[in-house]
Amino acid sequence: IYNICLLFSISNMTFHFQCTLTREYPEYVKMIEVGPRDGLQNEKEMVPTRVKIQLINMLSETGLPVIEATSFVSLKWVPQMADHTEVLQAIHRSSHARYPVLTPNMHGFQDAVAAGATEVAVFGSASETFSQKNIYCSIDASMLRFEEVICTAKQQQIPVRGYVSCALGCPYEGPIEPTKVAEVVKRLYELGCYEVSLGDTIGVGTPGSMAKMLHYVMEEVPSSALAVHCHDTYGQALANILTALQMGICAVDSSVAGLGGCPYAQGSSGNVSTEDVLYMLHGMGIKTGVDLSKVIEAGDFICKALNRKTNSKVAQARSKSS
Amino acid sequence: IYNICLLFSISNMTFHFQCTLTREYPEYVKMIEVGPRDGLQNEKEMVPTRVKIQLINMLSETGLPVIEATSFVSLKWVPQMADHTEVLQAIHRSSHARYPVLTPNMHGFQDAVAAGATEVAVFGSASETFSQKNIYCSIDASMLRFEEVICTAKQQQIPVRGYVSCALGCPYEGPIEPTKVAEVVKRLYELGCYEVSLGDTIGVGTPGSMAKMLHYVMEEVPSSALAVHCHDTYGQALANILTALQMGICAVDSSVAGLGGCPYAQGSSGNVSTEDVLYMLHGMGIKTGVDLSKVIEAGDFICKALNRKTNSKVAQARSKSS
Repeated sequence: IYNICLLFSISNMTFHFQCTLTREYPEYVKMIEVGPRDGLQNEKEMVPTRVKIQLINMLSETGLPVIEATSFVSLKWVPQMADHTEVLQAIHRSSHARYPVLTPNMHGFQDAVAAGATEVAVFGSASETFSQKNIYCSIDASMLRFEEVICTAKQQQIPVRGYVSCALGCPYEGPIEPTKVAEVVKRLYELGCYEVSLGDTIGVGTPGSMAKMLHYVMEEVPSSALAVHCHDTYGQALANILTALQMGICAVDSSVAGLGGCPYAQGSSGNVSTEDVLYMLHGMGIKTGVDLSKVIEAGDFICKALNRKTNSKVAQARSKSS
Repeated sequence: IYNICLLFSISNMTFHFQCTLTREYPEYVKMIEVGPRDGLQNEKEMVPTRVKIQLINMLSETGLPVIEATSFVSLKWVPQMADHTEVLQAIHRSSHARYPVLTPNMHGFQDAVAAGATEVAVFGSASETFSQKNIYCSIDASMLRFEEVICTAKQQQIPVRGYVSCALGCPYEGPIEPTKVAEVVKRLYELGCYEVSLGDTIGVGTPGSMAKMLHYVMEEVPSSALAVHCHDTYGQALANILTALQMGICAVDSSVAGLGGCPYAQGSSGNVSTEDVLYMLHGMGIKTGVDLSKVIEAGDFICKALNRKTNSKVAQARSKSS
């Protein structure tokens, strides 16, 4: 809360203005659930297809407006997502939710559309080295691939979401220049992505680096076309999301039960948990349309199926107190 | 970041003012380390006195300006702190640090002073029920006890810090009215506490309830005399601290390695970890004078001594990546 006073005189008249400025948060935040894809893709043991389907169906019941369902990538690279077609065709789609799938190239895009995808996503990086190591090509080369996918998608009226990884740091290069992030985000936006998600892939960001990065990105792309994708590896995710909300971002990626470890810091937590984000947002009076209790149930289901403890502190606290 | 435009006309002259307002964070935050007292007091197994002494000595080397050393409470209530005199007399006190000890009543205060305490703290509550269950008296009765302690301390030029528990919720009563919190904080401040620490004892607060509570408290007591004491039970601690900083608070309680579970939600995390707070503050360019690496070493020492995993995500991530 700020108080501003302006006092000035013209000739012999004095004017006095006072206004109180309250920090503004968005009234509504769009939650993008990435657990079924980003959360599960690095699981070593194959997660049964029926478990994935039930997880998505349970998430659909929560009111989540966007659920990333699966990934149409090479089976060689991500064997865990080999059942993408079966998953996408078997889930009960809610009329209130969208189900984007990851499509790194034209081949994946065509498979996705054939399987019934009505929204896709492309995954780029702000780090040259991460791009090479993660998708085996330079940033420039990846943009050419994405351009092909996005143009074709446009013709078929399929919306495309974009990801930019390493927006606050790279496991190989360290800090990434915010101007570099802004440039990559701008390219994806100008190619036609309706929204670009800024990923703190290794969770090293703080409210300081988040604010700085967003400042540069928002000079190129409107905040209404941006989302944040925070990892909680250093415990900073909620503080970073709060900072993003204060700067006008109103779309947040998260993962039920915090599914999805960070492969660059083994065993550490990765994706921020949907439950903890919802607890914060609802506590601030921000609407999401999502039922926290039902998300906790979905998280409980997948944790039991994976024989794992939840990464959500809210889910932990609720189960202890009940 | 906000942009404000004022445009107005008088007669035929038009005036146009524009100003950009940037969120202000404090340049310096005072860190109050509560691990050796609040963190250890609920340990079931007796922590060896030499371990406590070494922990405090290691913390003194980090540059922490305030280290709460022990508690002069009834041995019947808190047997873990029975070695208070030995601890307080054996530690190497840094000339740059202060070592408050908890003194619930005159008996404790006299023992503390006899043992060489140069600063003390009193522990009150914003919740009537919590006060009864925790310190076995009403809020009014506790204030009478504190008044005696504070008056005597004043005569001896011993500064007194105050705690108010349940500032954002009570395990028995649920939400606590911010006006009730403000009233208790005001009473402690007016009795003579130089600083009052606002405790989210069960970690249920969010940036929403934190902002609301602080709004009422800061109408009664200046922000320079306030600190926040956040628990991470629901993962909200850093977001709540960030909110407090934005509202002008510049003193933060935390516990090395996140020592100190929450007894009201067994097994859940309690005190926010000093390491995670430092990582956030330093990432925001805020000075603390504290060496994060040395705090991680102290946390590593106490976790090994207790045969326990750290609750600090920063410490976890650092140990994984090294």
